[in-house]
Amino acid sequence: MIQANTLRNFTEQVFLSIGCPDADARLAADVLVSADLRGVDSHGVARLPGYVRLYDHGRLNPTPDIRIVHESPSTAVIDGDRGLGLVVGPWAMQVAIEKARVAGTGWVAVRNSNHFGIAGYHAMLAVEHDMIGQAMTHAAPLVAPTFSLDKLLGTNPIAVAIPAMTEPPFLADFASTAVAYGKLEILQRKGQSAPSGWAQDAEGQPTTDANAVRNGGALLPLGSDREHGSHKGYGLGAIVDIFSGVLSGANYGPWVPPFATAGFMSASEGVGIGTGHFFGAMRIDAFRPADAFKQHMDTWIQRFRSAKAVDGHRVLIPGDPEREMEAERLANGIPVLDPVIRSLEELGDRFGIKL
Amino acid sequence: MIQANTLRNFTEQVFLSIGCPDADARLAADVLVSADLRGVDSHGVARLPGYVRLYDHGRLNPTPDIRIVHESPSTAVIDGDRGLGLVVGPWAMQVAIEKARVAGTGWVAVRNSNHFGIAGYHAMLAVEHDMIGQAMTHAAPLVAPTFSLDKLLGTNPIAVAIPAMTEPPFLADFASTAVAYGKLEILQRKGQSAPSGWAQDAEGQPTTDANAVRNGGALLPLGSDREHGSHKGYGLGAIVDIFSGVLSGANYGPWVPPFATAGFMSASEGVGIGTGHFFGAMRIDAFRPADAFKQHMDTWIQRFRSAKAVDGHRVLIPGDPEREMEAERLANGIPVLDPVIRSLEELGDRFGIKL
Repeated sequence: MIQANTLRNFTEQVFLSIGCPDADARLAADVLVSADLRGVDSHGVARLPGYVRLYDHGRLNPTPDIRIVHESPSTAVIDGDRGLGLVVGPWAMQVAIEKARVAGTGWVAVRNSNHFGIAGYHAMLAVEHDMIGQAMTHAAPLVAPTFSLDKLLGTNPIAVAIPAMTEPPFLADFASTAVAYGKLEILQRKGQSAPSGWAQDAEGQPTTDANAVRNGGALLPLGSDREHGSHKGYGLGAIVDIFSGVLSGANYGPWVPPFATAGFMSASEGVGIGTGHFFGAMRIDAFRPADAFKQHMDTWIQRFRSAKAVDGHRVLIPGDPEREMEAERLANGIPVLDPVIRSLEELGDRFGIKL
Repeated sequence: MIQANTLRNFTEQVFLSIGCPDADARLAADVLVSADLRGVDSHGVARLPGYVRLYDHGRLNPTPDIRIVHESPSTAVIDGDRGLGLVVGPWAMQVAIEKARVAGTGWVAVRNSNHFGIAGYHAMLAVEHDMIGQAMTHAAPLVAPTFSLDKLLGTNPIAVAIPAMTEPPFLADFASTAVAYGKLEILQRKGQSAPSGWAQDAEGQPTTDANAVRNGGALLPLGSDREHGSHKGYGLGAIVDIFSGVLSGANYGPWVPPFATAGFMSASEGVGIGTGHFFGAMRIDAFRPADAFKQHMDTWIQRFRSAKAVDGHRVLIPGDPEREMEAERLANGIPVLDPVIRSLEELGDRFGIKL
């Protein structure tokens, strides 16, 4: 078990070591470690070596000149200047919030960025301003559209954060696939097979092989197969890709650059600039008084949480599991896997930082 | 086979007969028949008797005073005054489009409406203005959240329409459930069982009983079960419910009034006013020049459509199947089921209209 503060300090030092300004290093560390706290281990410090590899290969600018390249009263397009997505994301979300203050809503498409951590972190930034926050991003292609053999979409997550009055916020944050790739990686390490409906093999047939995606197969969209609505998950992932990529002037579809998680791969030729995201903020009182809305959100949340449940289960509100995990990990520390600890220690050796 | 024009004229006459103004009757008929043309038979003229039942029970105002009750530069809340959702929808979408013209985007929450037909019709209204259109609506509760025995959400569809240059528009229009309820109704009529993953029984267990939803069971969210991401479909349906209901001041969750499809049921006590929807319009050139965007959309569409496909299949773009169906039915007529024809003839007898 490692305390969140320890991980955060270490991560901040690493980002400082590759040349990030103080505030950026602190923010980026906070975004990454918030994933570990919430139990989304695949998007936390396990990715720190990947960001450093991006830097080593000249694909990450530690001192970006993030700027608005186009705007209207309720919109903006932001060029991230190859900065850390972990920093570009909150920067863009801040623009969305400022737009919403004046115009009622703010919508920001981002290009020339890279992996921004967990979408929910960014969406949640709006909630303290009595706004609904939205964040989405595309990612490197691992997912086959319905009936496709080609991998054309990333896991393309969407997050929506909605404030309530006395209840904690509603926070939906989910990939548009049946399952996150990280869950297949866990099964790969254990040598176990996967449930049918998570992946297809190289011929596009259902498979339980946890290694299928690495052997010419693909992750499946939410819905798994046509009979269970995979065309809907495909549609959802496509919307995220178009908002993040085509609207912003970034790459899209199969041209989205890979994130350097498992060794560095060169970016494809490309049809735009870097990786893209899309953010939104809607001021509640641009629709109705914030207090009335939040009271009704309490009613909504309490009604759903008190639903009669299947034996041995309870009905959760989106955001409940991650918030419960965060409370537990803040109290007891974060269980970081040995291979991740070793990769962090390697970074520590390189930069002279103690974990 | 019935020609679209014949169905449209008949439907228009029925709406005129219950007191709708000329333009409203024509518009409502166009929205309904567009569903039949696109192959979404469950949302077309088969529902016409339901709208008349709503009128008979005083729940439908044929001459509504639809009005904006609150607004900001990029938002509005609209009270539909118990008007036809088929008319309130395009009215609200027009407001979203006008807002987007000035503010870059427009977002409209609607309350005090009822069933608005197919979401895609409304979303598509933005496309001719070089805008991205969005439309969503909640509906009467048929769907159980993950691990719930209670039905708390409707099939809650989302539509997103995106213009391209030479390619037809991208149009995703899908329920947030594994399957539309209409598909279970077809199996019920045939006395056939359903694939597992579409519905659960009264104990919340997987079932292949096509009658399960009528016997204490529920439709399942997109993803079908927890292992395949049903919490994501639940999250998606919840977002639609909150945007349509809580943001607008309509009902929400289990309090959404039933649509009078299979006999009239009285509306629940309620926590708001009527049924709600949510619409959006984003001006493309509030982000980047419309021509550049649309050219890249052509590239996106052509790349996805030309993907290598599973043997015997092809990779479709969201909107392809409905557009192909529309071309065929415009040419050859619409196959209306006998029970639907009989129900229309009954309306015809009542109002003195020939089908």
